[in-house]
Amino acid sequence: MPRRISIRQSVMAADEKIANRLRRDLKDRGILMVNLIGSPGAGKTTLLESTLAGTDLRSAVIEGDIATSRDAERIARTGTQAVQINTHGGCHLEAHLVEKALEELALDKVDIVFIENVGNLVCPAEFDLGEDYKVAVCSLPEGPDKPLKYPHLFCEAGAVLLTKIDLNKHIPFDRELFWGDVSRLNPNAKKIEISATAGDGMQEWKALLSRWLGEKR
Amino acid sequence: MPRRISIRQSVMAADEKIANRLRRDLKDRGILMVNLIGSPGAGKTTLLESTLAGTDLRSAVIEGDIATSRDAERIARTGTQAVQINTHGGCHLEAHLVEKALEELALDKVDIVFIENVGNLVCPAEFDLGEDYKVAVCSLPEGPDKPLKYPHLFCEAGAVLLTKIDLNKHIPFDRELFWGDVSRLNPNAKKIEISATAGDGMQEWKALLSRWLGEKR
Repeated sequence: MPRRISIRQSVMAADEKIANRLRRDLKDRGILMVNLIGSPGAGKTTLLESTLAGTDLRSAVIEGDIATSRDAERIARTGTQAVQINTHGGCHLEAHLVEKALEELALDKVDIVFIENVGNLVCPAEFDLGEDYKVAVCSLPEGPDKPLKYPHLFCEAGAVLLTKIDLNKHIPFDRELFWGDVSRLNPNAKKIEISATAGDGMQEWKALLSRWLGEKR
Repeated sequence: MPRRISIRQSVMAADEKIANRLRRDLKDRGILMVNLIGSPGAGKTTLLESTLAGTDLRSAVIEGDIATSRDAERIARTGTQAVQINTHGGCHLEAHLVEKALEELALDKVDIVFIENVGNLVCPAEFDLGEDYKVAVCSLPEGPDKPLKYPHLFCEAGAVLLTKIDLNKHIPFDRELFWGDVSRLNPNAKKIEISATAGDGMQEWKALLSRWLGEKR
């Protein structure tokens, strides 16, 4: 189906230009943008809620969902400004959607913009949204075989977060397999185990965000 | 982007013809085909392993994954014939891929063909593979808000399976919210709670498969 591929590539090329423009604009303003990608239910929103609580970093959040504004409402309850994008069936966010969402945010006092992508371990990995880093969010109950079965995101990610590790008391999980596969796919990815509810790993995650922000400024 | 949409629709229309042909052929042979769709780690392969163990129904399995043949190897260990499709990045199966996989299976003594789609709660719902029923597989740790956030699959499904319910001992889950949303989206879907490891719900699931098979013959 070469015809389909060529159209798709031209659409992606147009979006790539927008992504590069967003990245330049945000660099000029000293703002870091992080694109969180993971399966439905991987714990992305809960991770954000914990990240936003008790941090010095001034944040804004762009929530991507096919339908509902539940996640943006959860973020807004933390006191952080949030914009909801509904893709109405679309399986991933694209840069032109992020561009519109950024226009709705008051960015003059913001250090970090978090994008929570549509819950999907596959398609969002292919799209550049103008972010500085993609972050792979994989939860322990999904099982340790995910990196090799869904390699693209794990190869692209600046960091891989294994979430819900408090459940390891009840669910067996082969850490060596999981982290071994991650390291083979992407030796440079920062690797953090997190329980957003119990607090494990949150300091390390926030320190990584601060380091990324410092490197940008 | 109307151009992109029209190309996509023409590709889908060609595949729709293949899907309809597969459905007719399988009906002539008295074979039921069921398309399992759910997030990465929802427990689709474990559900299949339990379904295949100790059943009178003669089965074959088509495994869809982006990469690896781990799931087909797990199925083959149950003594059931299995074919692995690797999509190499593709986020869903399409009917022409299923057609090729069916050619590799010995179908003369088969009652049911199970398709395990690529782990993805979004894209696979849009594609007709020639199956008789799509089955939504959603695991308890994903949280109860998934039906409204990913409505397409839940609207299309002949049955919705809530898996890993044994974890409810350790993870709170709002059943009323989950099943209420499913019922509002799709009043006709059969609803079953399952623990493939502890056995809960497996009889009901196997009885549903037998009923679907009986209705086809």
